[in-house]
Amino acid sequence: MKLAESITVCEVGLRDGLQIEKQILSAAQKLELIHGLEEAGVKVIEVGSFMNPKAVPQMANTDEVFRSLTQLPGVEYRALVGNVKGVQRAVDCGCRKVKLNISASKGHCLANLNKLPMEQMKTFAPSVALAHENSVQVSGSIACPFGSPWDESIPLSDICEIIDAYLAAGVNEISISDAPGVAMPKQVYELMGELKARYPQCKFILHFHNTRGMGIANIMAGMEAGVTWYDSSLAGTGGCPFVPGAAGNVSTEDIINMCDAQGIKTGIDLDRIIDLGHTLEEYMGHQGGSAVLRAGKNKGILLRMPTGQGENPTLKR
Amino acid sequence: MKLAESITVCEVGLRDGLQIEKQILSAAQKLELIHGLEEAGVKVIEVGSFMNPKAVPQMANTDEVFRSLTQLPGVEYRALVGNVKGVQRAVDCGCRKVKLNISASKGHCLANLNKLPMEQMKTFAPSVALAHENSVQVSGSIACPFGSPWDESIPLSDICEIIDAYLAAGVNEISISDAPGVAMPKQVYELMGELKARYPQCKFILHFHNTRGMGIANIMAGMEAGVTWYDSSLAGTGGCPFVPGAAGNVSTEDIINMCDAQGIKTGIDLDRIIDLGHTLEEYMGHQGGSAVLRAGKNKGILLRMPTGQGENPTLKR
Repeated sequence: MKLAESITVCEVGLRDGLQIEKQILSAAQKLELIHGLEEAGVKVIEVGSFMNPKAVPQMANTDEVFRSLTQLPGVEYRALVGNVKGVQRAVDCGCRKVKLNISASKGHCLANLNKLPMEQMKTFAPSVALAHENSVQVSGSIACPFGSPWDESIPLSDICEIIDAYLAAGVNEISISDAPGVAMPKQVYELMGELKARYPQCKFILHFHNTRGMGIANIMAGMEAGVTWYDSSLAGTGGCPFVPGAAGNVSTEDIINMCDAQGIKTGIDLDRIIDLGHTLEEYMGHQGGSAVLRAGKNKGILLRMPTGQGENPTLKR
Repeated sequence: MKLAESITVCEVGLRDGLQIEKQILSAAQKLELIHGLEEAGVKVIEVGSFMNPKAVPQMANTDEVFRSLTQLPGVEYRALVGNVKGVQRAVDCGCRKVKLNISASKGHCLANLNKLPMEQMKTFAPSVALAHENSVQVSGSIACPFGSPWDESIPLSDICEIIDAYLAAGVNEISISDAPGVAMPKQVYELMGELKARYPQCKFILHFHNTRGMGIANIMAGMEAGVTWYDSSLAGTGGCPFVPGAAGNVSTEDIINMCDAQGIKTGIDLDRIIDLGHTLEEYMGHQGGSAVLRAGKNKGILLRMPTGQGENPTLKR
């Protein structure tokens, strides 16, 4: 079993995790979490999004967060944008990397925007241009490449058409985002093997939701296919607006625990992440979907026995 | 990625799932679930255990369940036993297959029984003898082979010593049971590859708890190592008495959904299993740990859109 030597974990909890939460976090709370993530060793943080504040009120203070943020060298702070207005807000508040998103599911695109994916792609041109004029980096996300409630399967050619368009626009960092949580390991392994072979110039980031309990298994499959960038959310926050009952993103605690226990380097301190996960749960007012936050991590399991059950009789005998 | 063509899913929810539940299910409720499992196509059902009813009151009616059960040909009905008293109860009520269990973690064995694993193994001799005299099949489980809160790692030689002893006693069906939920895919792949090579005469069953979110990933690794028998629990019920906050067994719904979506045959009807999972949750009075029970299955996802969101614009355009 061929695993990665190291992977980069990109924290998306403050954006994808919080965007459907009822409880709105203040800019101060978000900044506290961002500083905690920096201290824990996280090198990519999705800070928020610049969408219509009426549609996504949880993200309305993203500009304020960026204005108050001292961006550390070696850490990437990115935000989701939907159009040129969002890019302008990013430029204005000092955000240096934006992420565009397009659904590979034609049905999903039509239902959401009454546009086909490639029609939506054309609308991105002014966004990319404005970003690049202002030295703001652009990343491109492809949602639903593994299927959606509107299109149970997505032709590879549809995914490639989007990647080609991103590349033509000068965007070579591509997120492959299973928002509805339908991806299966074999599918992940095969698609990513294919995409990596076709597009060696691309940096692919995998983004999984744990909707059907497949998140970590899909990450394992991604690693077997050679992908080394993964999104995750503190406390496993999030869900999916069009999948009732959906679990959130794969939790940051679970992915780092899995890496630590298998000798895969992340550069992230799991204990600090666990503390931050608990803080975020406190701010949200409820538990997320992180297994490790409930049951504890693997490493040092002996030390974490509750008092009274902690004596290790092996050591005495 | 090499997956199994088909696997056998062994339902252990009525035993491992329920044994730490507060709500005690009646024999009639258990029988209803067993009949449902048979109808869904499940071929191995762990009906309960013959332990001290004071210690495990949820299992006290196991004898009654077996007495009322018409055992179908082609379906295996097994129960956990701890000693010769348990085997006698199994013989008396018509149970035809018992499962012994031993922890590979010396610290765990000593803490629980003040015996080393091989000392406990010796106490099994009368149980195996009584079972075999009465044509009751015997299966052997090995708990904690991937580590425990008492022993962070378990030497391969300790596991092999237990398997050798089981084989010497005429037991060649061996469950590899990660009760504390510490197993990792690479470890599963390597251990099972090693055990399958060393013991071609054994039938290995893998049993995972989802304590740290690794259950399905570990099953994928088991399939890559060629293992085709897996325990799971309806509704993902269960936990671990010595891991506070532990999740239950991998859920039957999640494993069958994973198989269905990847073309791995189980012979089990997922829709019926989902109905049974909801019934069990109703009887327990709370949700279990099944992702599919909350979010729905993969196949037919298009048909399961809530009314009003179900129009598929792709079809109209």
